[in-house]
Amino acid sequence: MIAKKMKEMVKNSSAIRAMFEEGTKMASLYGKEQVYDFSLGNPNVPAPASVKKVIIDLVSEEDPKELHGYTNSNSGYQEVRETVADSLNRRFGTSFSGKNIIMTVGAAGGLNVILKTILDPLDEVIVFCPYFGEYRSYVSNFDGVLVEVSADTNTFQPNLEEFEKKITAKTKAIILNTPNNPSGVVYPECVIRKISELLVRKQKEFGTDIYLISDEPYREIVYDGVEVPFLTQYYDNTIVVYSYSKSLSLPGERIGYLVIPEEVSQCDLVLAAANVANRILGFVNAPTLLQKVVERCIEEQTDVAYYDRNRHTLYEGLTKLGFECVKPEGAFYLFLKSPIPDEKEFCECAKKYHILMVPGSSFSCPGYVRLAYCVSYETILRSLPEFKKLAEEYF
Amino acid sequence: MIAKKMKEMVKNSSAIRAMFEEGTKMASLYGKEQVYDFSLGNPNVPAPASVKKVIIDLVSEEDPKELHGYTNSNSGYQEVRETVADSLNRRFGTSFSGKNIIMTVGAAGGLNVILKTILDPLDEVIVFCPYFGEYRSYVSNFDGVLVEVSADTNTFQPNLEEFEKKITAKTKAIILNTPNNPSGVVYPECVIRKISELLVRKQKEFGTDIYLISDEPYREIVYDGVEVPFLTQYYDNTIVVYSYSKSLSLPGERIGYLVIPEEVSQCDLVLAAANVANRILGFVNAPTLLQKVVERCIEEQTDVAYYDRNRHTLYEGLTKLGFECVKPEGAFYLFLKSPIPDEKEFCECAKKYHILMVPGSSFSCPGYVRLAYCVSYETILRSLPEFKKLAEEYF
Repeated sequence: MIAKKMKEMVKNSSAIRAMFEEGTKMASLYGKEQVYDFSLGNPNVPAPASVKKVIIDLVSEEDPKELHGYTNSNSGYQEVRETVADSLNRRFGTSFSGKNIIMTVGAAGGLNVILKTILDPLDEVIVFCPYFGEYRSYVSNFDGVLVEVSADTNTFQPNLEEFEKKITAKTKAIILNTPNNPSGVVYPECVIRKISELLVRKQKEFGTDIYLISDEPYREIVYDGVEVPFLTQYYDNTIVVYSYSKSLSLPGERIGYLVIPEEVSQCDLVLAAANVANRILGFVNAPTLLQKVVERCIEEQTDVAYYDRNRHTLYEGLTKLGFECVKPEGAFYLFLKSPIPDEKEFCECAKKYHILMVPGSSFSCPGYVRLAYCVSYETILRSLPEFKKLAEEYF
Repeated sequence: MIAKKMKEMVKNSSAIRAMFEEGTKMASLYGKEQVYDFSLGNPNVPAPASVKKVIIDLVSEEDPKELHGYTNSNSGYQEVRETVADSLNRRFGTSFSGKNIIMTVGAAGGLNVILKTILDPLDEVIVFCPYFGEYRSYVSNFDGVLVEVSADTNTFQPNLEEFEKKITAKTKAIILNTPNNPSGVVYPECVIRKISELLVRKQKEFGTDIYLISDEPYREIVYDGVEVPFLTQYYDNTIVVYSYSKSLSLPGERIGYLVIPEEVSQCDLVLAAANVANRILGFVNAPTLLQKVVERCIEEQTDVAYYDRNRHTLYEGLTKLGFECVKPEGAFYLFLKSPIPDEKEFCECAKKYHILMVPGSSFSCPGYVRLAYCVSYETILRSLPEFKKLAEEYF
């Protein structure tokens, strides 16, 4: 007697998650070393050493009633919010204050909070294929309508012509994810400028507010010196969603934040509503110990070089075998063209060699598969001979 | 341009929260010692000392990639879930296994997960006045209809006659909260039996499933040896929502669990859907470090004697002054009858003496006010002369 909506959800339950659970099963059958699990974005780079030290310091120094208590505001500790604002200001030349920051239960929490805040039923939210499949569920949670812009599979850059056509009077938000999951592509400044100009024009045309939601958990994970434009600098109605899952390797701890800049129209109302949404969705506040970890580790960085070596080795290895793929510039995903149109069959076939990949259909981009290369370097090396066997089935 | 639903929510934003923020402001104006803030259930008893030790042990001993990584299942670490199940089985003679437990982001997270799992739009959820006002928002999140059973202000026990009348073919769930927030009353076994019998009968009559959701964050906080019946023992379609916010004084850390017993109809489907709901609502998984803290601190208890002394002193003090109140048997709330019908005016008047209390209207029970006595004993002692001045305005 579960909800009708949930029946569908259970049926189509996350392919990524199913893979991850399958990977664990395979590992127990064949040994962890003999399974090449590229299914989930669970970082193999450990959290910076200072995270451990800071946690020990915090529980040793602070009054547990304060450290583990409800925060005064549902938006988080004031001093943590100010630290986040200051850090962003230093890095991106912005001028946020603590009030513009809401600490959240990761980016998934942040996205749900902001969508709850802005979406009326049947409001449209535009996404660019390929995109993180969970956006479908998040938008559906608030009875929004997801509008897909089809993929440009040559570059995996946003298809701006189609985008323009899909903006309507019902468009409430765009979700942009750069560096992109699953393609690894970074949208350059010229693309961001075009998107912004388009949105400014369409806002005027329809007399509406269109929010640009920048989902950027991979902001710092970029290679070859590529620059990631900071979107609030380009478009006023931008809301930033961030997570420390990848940048501090803390995905299980559920800590991130929202930025709602002063330039957002009716900023104070949006902030107040997001504060309430954070509470009534059941998050209440972002986990308090982790908020304080963020405060003290604000300048820490993950080991991007580790991911970069993985990227090079996997990209070179796979393209040499005959596979095709746009070289990723950020995040830790590689979006491989399936050698056959039915990429699900390709994924099934790969399992024979204990290789786990996620079908592109999960990202509304069939014909491709996603490899999360946030695994150990040894896994990459050991997987290549197995990919060779897989390639021989097709080329 | 925020959502219409959220506009209302912002307007009626939690009176409890507003009070809490006001309390902090007053404290900075008059000094913390001169403010008697009974507004929020933020425990003044610190977390057990072992929590600190366990956190240090965990970050020192465990691989950070495992400790802070995504859990294999969105429902949590398997070994944590088994530890919770075993502990419940030992204490209540149940026979849960790890699969029946879903670790959640506190009880607020657990309630949202289970309501998302079961509620279709316009499904009815019955609550007994007075009740935790957040239930309104949680039910509204999924377009359910909250049906209130009016308070029996003589005893604050459920009004069973009215309850029976309010059960319809659209009733999907009952939320029961015992020990109760805000009344502090515990529902005895005879009441639980009557509720169960009624529900069994109504399920048959309507051919429906009616879920009894037992929200029990105060389960262990009881006085005078009062017994709290464990509801899965009385009614098959019972789902338990639990939080460690009060029992381990960790409200900021957001850790709790759901129990979905085998006896629940279509248990496996409900479990699968709740697992998905936990993911798509943006919780993803309960914070991982705290899951492991729960595993190692499963037998820890909070200092109930501390709250008991507060209870006695405050209850005796207030009743001697002429105030009326049902003596609480559990939780750390006291539900005082307002000496004037408009309890909001009474709360405003109390602020003159730096006393903060929450109007009963927040709990759909006007004419009463809630005092959270999870404050320091010294605050209770210092507040009594101020309550005396307040009493003199009325008696």
